[in-house]
Amino acid sequence: MSQPDPKRVKTDDDAPYELIYWPVIPGRGEFVRLVFEEAGVPYSDVAQNIEKGMNAVSSLTATDNIGDEHNPPALAPPALKHGDLLISQTPNILLYVAPRVGLAPKEGNGVYHLNEIVLTILDGLVNELHDTHHPIAISLYYEDQKEESKKKSQYFIKERLPKYFKYMQRVLDAKTSGEGPWLYGDSLTYADLVLFQAVDGTKFAFPKSTEALKKSGEYDGVFKLYDAVKERPNISKYLQSDRRRKYSEGIWRYYPELEEE
Amino acid sequence: MSQPDPKRVKTDDDAPYELIYWPVIPGRGEFVRLVFEEAGVPYSDVAQNIEKGMNAVSSLTATDNIGDEHNPPALAPPALKHGDLLISQTPNILLYVAPRVGLAPKEGNGVYHLNEIVLTILDGLVNELHDTHHPIAISLYYEDQKEESKKKSQYFIKERLPKYFKYMQRVLDAKTSGEGPWLYGDSLTYADLVLFQAVDGTKFAFPKSTEALKKSGEYDGVFKLYDAVKERPNISKYLQSDRRRKYSEGIWRYYPELEEE
Repeated sequence: MSQPDPKRVKTDDDAPYELIYWPVIPGRGEFVRLVFEEAGVPYSDVAQNIEKGMNAVSSLTATDNIGDEHNPPALAPPALKHGDLLISQTPNILLYVAPRVGLAPKEGNGVYHLNEIVLTILDGLVNELHDTHHPIAISLYYEDQKEESKKKSQYFIKERLPKYFKYMQRVLDAKTSGEGPWLYGDSLTYADLVLFQAVDGTKFAFPKSTEALKKSGEYDGVFKLYDAVKERPNISKYLQSDRRRKYSEGIWRYYPELEEE
Repeated sequence: MSQPDPKRVKTDDDAPYELIYWPVIPGRGEFVRLVFEEAGVPYSDVAQNIEKGMNAVSSLTATDNIGDEHNPPALAPPALKHGDLLISQTPNILLYVAPRVGLAPKEGNGVYHLNEIVLTILDGLVNELHDTHHPIAISLYYEDQKEESKKKSQYFIKERLPKYFKYMQRVLDAKTSGEGPWLYGDSLTYADLVLFQAVDGTKFAFPKSTEALKKSGEYDGVFKLYDAVKERPNISKYLQSDRRRKYSEGIWRYYPELEEE
């Protein structure tokens, strides 16, 4: 048996990063894209081609998908391929990628503190916002659950939005937030990118309510962090590129009637 | 300055594990308890004293909680204290504890595969089941959102329950599931304990629907794994002890009308 040529053997860490997500919408894939864009690390994004993207997601979500030799099946996108590894679930992909691209510590308590902050924003603010337009079933059209959506949105705006903004502000007020505008420590981490995208999507879906939160002056740290991320050179370039999708029919949708009393 | 006495310096790993969760209900704290119980690792559980438990949770969830010198604030229980570290979010606590007590690999792809499976079960089956009795707002009583609950439950039973059972069965059918009844690899991991608790809670809340899934014969691996966990010596002892809470008003509630057509 011949020796493998080291130049031809791909280890996980020099394999390309490949994102699998729905084309057209930003959606949960956006949290992953922002990490690569900020870090300036190349990644392929199958969603850039509508047909290829749809096919990749369909094959991922097929009900007879039982994974492969190395990986259990994923239930839903986003998924990330890196060498032989295929993983899914947004906070899990971020947990894997962020320390590899310099946006999280590789070990120690910070790993778990950042994961906690990210899970709280994703599981809380992002998932609950999604459910404002789909409170009964994701298989039903919005139009068929509009009355329930209006009802849920009232509580979301009055109780849940301030709760999550207050939480994010408290993390910024904590001693663990350090110097600078960042959530944890003295420099930007992937949790800051998650906050940015969650707030950006909320601004799109509930513009009046987000403006009211801003004007209250109670969450200045949150909005300052939002601006600081937006102004990062790599993020700013990305947001102006056509790689950044427009909001439409994903998690973040704009239905003006949901902000009416 | 005198040298620290090594016998008096507590490293993280010999510090006691302290669970902070609501008293009385099993709830999300149960996923953490099962890991310690299976591993036979001592832990304190503040919920064992109703007053102390209520106080600990109230202080954790206080809206002026900004954490401490070492930790950002938690938004909600469960939380785990281990030495100076305090972390929250169920899948995050499990990610931290499981490799330390021998119920998950310490590094490599398995870390992310297990986290993926656990996030899918918790974020999907568990959170969606919770929302069947609180589709509009968690601040409202069930009785004030009963009609919406009935509507949501119909879709949950018809579409979501089979989707998640099928997913769990597919993970068991994958090549990564190995020998034995377990989800990943050849031996029990914390993902198996999460599946057990998620199925056990579902049986309580939707007994007729769970029985129908069982009788269909399509998810035999899932129910076999459920039984295998239940029969583990440490788990079996725990389930018969008074440390195991009865289901009542938490995530898993039994409202017979939600299973009616």
